[in-house]
Amino acid sequence: MATNKEIVIGIDVGGTNTKFGLVDSQGNILDEGRIKTTDYATVELFVDALYENITPLLKNHTDKTVKGIGMGAPNGNFYTGCIDHAPNLRWGEEVPLAKLMTDKFDLTCILTNDANAAAAGEMQYGIAKGMQHFIEITLGTGVGSGIVVDGKLLYGCNGIAGELGHTIIRPGGRKHWSTGSRGSVEAYCSATGIVITAKEQLKKKAYPDSKLRQVKVDDITAKVINELAVQGDKLAQKVYQITGRILGEALANFVMFSSPQAIVLFGGVIKAGDYLLKPAKKYMELNLLPAFRGRVKLLLSDLKEADAAILGASSLVQKSKATRAVHPV
Amino acid sequence: MATNKEIVIGIDVGGTNTKFGLVDSQGNILDEGRIKTTDYATVELFVDALYENITPLLKNHTDKTVKGIGMGAPNGNFYTGCIDHAPNLRWGEEVPLAKLMTDKFDLTCILTNDANAAAAGEMQYGIAKGMQHFIEITLGTGVGSGIVVDGKLLYGCNGIAGELGHTIIRPGGRKHWSTGSRGSVEAYCSATGIVITAKEQLKKKAYPDSKLRQVKVDDITAKVINELAVQGDKLAQKVYQITGRILGEALANFVMFSSPQAIVLFGGVIKAGDYLLKPAKKYMELNLLPAFRGRVKLLLSDLKEADAAILGASSLVQKSKATRAVHPV
Repeated sequence: MATNKEIVIGIDVGGTNTKFGLVDSQGNILDEGRIKTTDYATVELFVDALYENITPLLKNHTDKTVKGIGMGAPNGNFYTGCIDHAPNLRWGEEVPLAKLMTDKFDLTCILTNDANAAAAGEMQYGIAKGMQHFIEITLGTGVGSGIVVDGKLLYGCNGIAGELGHTIIRPGGRKHWSTGSRGSVEAYCSATGIVITAKEQLKKKAYPDSKLRQVKVDDITAKVINELAVQGDKLAQKVYQITGRILGEALANFVMFSSPQAIVLFGGVIKAGDYLLKPAKKYMELNLLPAFRGRVKLLLSDLKEADAAILGASSLVQKSKATRAVHPV
Repeated sequence: MATNKEIVIGIDVGGTNTKFGLVDSQGNILDEGRIKTTDYATVELFVDALYENITPLLKNHTDKTVKGIGMGAPNGNFYTGCIDHAPNLRWGEEVPLAKLMTDKFDLTCILTNDANAAAAGEMQYGIAKGMQHFIEITLGTGVGSGIVVDGKLLYGCNGIAGELGHTIIRPGGRKHWSTGSRGSVEAYCSATGIVITAKEQLKKKAYPDSKLRQVKVDDITAKVINELAVQGDKLAQKVYQITGRILGEALANFVMFSSPQAIVLFGGVIKAGDYLLKPAKKYMELNLLPAFRGRVKLLLSDLKEADAAILGASSLVQKSKATRAVHPV
């Protein structure tokens, strides 16, 4: 188990920015920083830059042991330690990030995808603390998921389980801008999907006085729609009703798969609060078999979004048995 | 671990008949029998009848130790040992079957639902032998599922995980005759659903020469439709194309949840073979994210249907550590 003298390097690799922090066993971020992911043409240069930026931070904590490195990244594969075919990272098809990090830092490195990292953080520090069975749904630019079964992340036979954003909930429905599939959860319930739903609604004649009609089309974001919904704009509220209904139907399917104690929603889209949560809850319950009804909590994450990714990544290592705990400085 | 000298009582409780057998550690059924489930007004009388029928069989094997009793039953809950709200069994809301069996036989009794028992049997004796991650889909009068993750059945927080037949694949679609939900997998892909699809197709004008038009409406069964499909009847084949497509779309969603090595199909409906399998495979692949494509086997169970339920039930005990192994005779 982790002691007060142990720290973990938590790293969240995003398409644009990479954030890192030193995290103690209580989930305090002692030091942090960031670099721009897109500044590095190769993964080797990226790893060098991380080393140059993180080692100065470690020098402030020479009284502590570094237990390892936890990393969350798009398409990060827990089993192989590689980033597989991440569309937003231009470092190749299969990038052996965990191995490169271990070689550079001489520390154990555990990699997983960003949604799994969020679920790990939720289990260690967040609203799912102590839960053995829950599903984390990340609602941001895309829709991701981390599934926890018997207190462990579900990885499947090859490390890529839990792509619930790409399950189909409206067969033959909206075409996904990137995968080309029709009717996926992500096509409707991501920030991107919400904007598309708003634009569809704007083409209809209902709610002629909606303030959303005064926003320039290119300026419509999930954030703007949310702000208008809070101000009482009926069209904006309808967009969240549509989104929440589809999300709720999808959640019912997920519940009947793994029978979790709770579904935890995370990410920018949850700022809509009850406008999203109420229809989601209603349609989840409506589509569940009676045996599941009223038994599954639908919760909003209470982790600070800015910290969650670093905490989540670090918790991968907190939960693991350290195989090496060598201070790299 | 089981030895050659150990046997298990495997019992499959069906809505109409209950089959039981004595199973050795190699999966041989040494002795078997059946009683009519519906003959017993109370669960206590049912347990008495099982005792009266099984003890004579045990007397043929006094050289062996009985390791325990494994039971599969509709709505059987692994955690509580109860049958919860089974619509076809009239013994009450929550029937503590495992406890009653243990009290009567003085043997450990493990209960689970019938689809989980089938998956357990598949893992121990069938086509999924040695697999750590697979999903068993039972296609019979209803659609059930048993999900195996890391070599263990997935039960969720309360023992009722894996109700994939009731996940929604056609929102707003066909109303389920019993649950009232709309567009569930069971509404289309069960034997009952296949007959409804056939009747819908018969109302259309296509395939005026189909032999299915000569069958009395009340005599149309999935078996009849299958026989006609094999004979080349285009309407009957279309019914399986429709069924297989919907099944395949649902399977894609399941795969993106738990990333299994294989999906194993089991039950009467799989007699349709390629008429079902080909469209199911096609639409599964079509709806998967590229990372999953071509990596998941779609298999037909090779367990004899008559034996599978008994073997599956018995394997629950074979895999467990016996907590008591007392010969009851």
